[in-house]
Amino acid sequence: MTKIEELDLQAQRIVRQAGKNAYEKMDNGYQVDTKTNYTDLVTTIDRENEQFINQQLRKIDPNSRILSEEGFGDKRILDLTGHIWIVDPIDGTMNFVKQHNNFAVMLALYIDGIPTLGYIVDVVNNHLYHGRHGEGVFKDDQQLTPPANLGLRESLLAMNRTLTLGDNPLLKRVAKEAMGLRMYGSAGIEMIGVLTGQLGGYISNLKPWDLAAGRMLAEELGLVVKSIDGSSINVLSSNLVLVATSQVSRDIRQIIN
Amino acid sequence: MTKIEELDLQAQRIVRQAGKNAYEKMDNGYQVDTKTNYTDLVTTIDRENEQFINQQLRKIDPNSRILSEEGFGDKRILDLTGHIWIVDPIDGTMNFVKQHNNFAVMLALYIDGIPTLGYIVDVVNNHLYHGRHGEGVFKDDQQLTPPANLGLRESLLAMNRTLTLGDNPLLKRVAKEAMGLRMYGSAGIEMIGVLTGQLGGYISNLKPWDLAAGRMLAEELGLVVKSIDGSSINVLSSNLVLVATSQVSRDIRQIIN
Repeated sequence: MTKIEELDLQAQRIVRQAGKNAYEKMDNGYQVDTKTNYTDLVTTIDRENEQFINQQLRKIDPNSRILSEEGFGDKRILDLTGHIWIVDPIDGTMNFVKQHNNFAVMLALYIDGIPTLGYIVDVVNNHLYHGRHGEGVFKDDQQLTPPANLGLRESLLAMNRTLTLGDNPLLKRVAKEAMGLRMYGSAGIEMIGVLTGQLGGYISNLKPWDLAAGRMLAEELGLVVKSIDGSSINVLSSNLVLVATSQVSRDIRQIIN
Repeated sequence: MTKIEELDLQAQRIVRQAGKNAYEKMDNGYQVDTKTNYTDLVTTIDRENEQFINQQLRKIDPNSRILSEEGFGDKRILDLTGHIWIVDPIDGTMNFVKQHNNFAVMLALYIDGIPTLGYIVDVVNNHLYHGRHGEGVFKDDQQLTPPANLGLRESLLAMNRTLTLGDNPLLKRVAKEAMGLRMYGSAGIEMIGVLTGQLGGYISNLKPWDLAAGRMLAEELGLVVKSIDGSSINVLSSNLVLVATSQVSRDIRQIIN
């Protein structure tokens, strides 16, 4: 077994365990705080889960660096050399708190900037979406086939609230032209939608931990992951990202360019 | 057993069977047509399911009238006297076709205008939400407790695409002020969200078959079901409807009045 294969197996175990932790505690036994405003939530489970994941990663890959949402990772990661693990201990915290559904645990490994391992746990439905660079994408044990290359008018599109209600008339046209518009409130759940063909595209402002795993898995399936203006992604910063079939991506660029 | 209790049991059997029909055929074995435009879909399963439900209703309640989406019911129902069954054979047809998820079968009985029986089948998760006037609302065998009476800023709100992208600045303010915005593309799934407290409110343009069952169940739980302007609902016509906790309803009326 190669080193990467071994890390892959251990990372699968870690994220499944983190999903189980969140599932067991979601009905009670945690505290909710707000961060920047009343829509920006964090719970003690986000923090516990991040500490758990990071501790485990330090054990299995001691020389790596960790970029994680709640601040228990390494500070000021400014370059992509070596192993960088990117951690979202609960993606869709508002859904976790309000719905007890539609949230995810996400993890990715980038090696010298190359998206190499990716994991999204759909916690409530108990599915792990995972992939290794060049080796395909799996839902649990079952390999996913790349989604059909449909266009915007044949596809459901997910877009976040800020963009949908915002003042950009071109994005509004994109949202109107899609066959239908969806909004689930979790980048992980929306990424799974695109990976499985339930959505033809997803447009959102994404932080590194929202993007890293989904990008790895989407690119592995031949999907397009780009800044909305067509430029390439910097996974260390916030990006306005489109994840889509290549036809949806072309249709959208025709509207916004 | 009263006549209504008997109709209730038989209606539960009918909608569960209709859900099973849709589930078994959703991967293949149907044809998709468009109705008014490329976003307005109907499949042979919608039609088969409606014929099945209506035939069964004719057997168990021969003197009733049936109002149903795909045209196999009674024509020109202009008053609410007697028994009126309202049928949505597949709610969220676009999700049925594109996602194989997030669609519902819905049925309601109104007697002399009073919402008396209501059913929403969450097909893929295999749950039946059902209720009888004065007897509470159940998810399968488990009685639902009324959702906590939270306000708009503590609640997720669902709103459909047309309203979210539309030109009404007050509805936009409502959508911005909610804790979060969601869009699932099925009135049935969105109604379930409000019934279970996963959503604090739902605003949409609803036809009789989109509204009838959810309205019955929501009112039974003490939720508010009103036209967005506060006027009462006419279940025989299209309505711009708000289904919400009473506090969300008050918060929204404060914004739009």
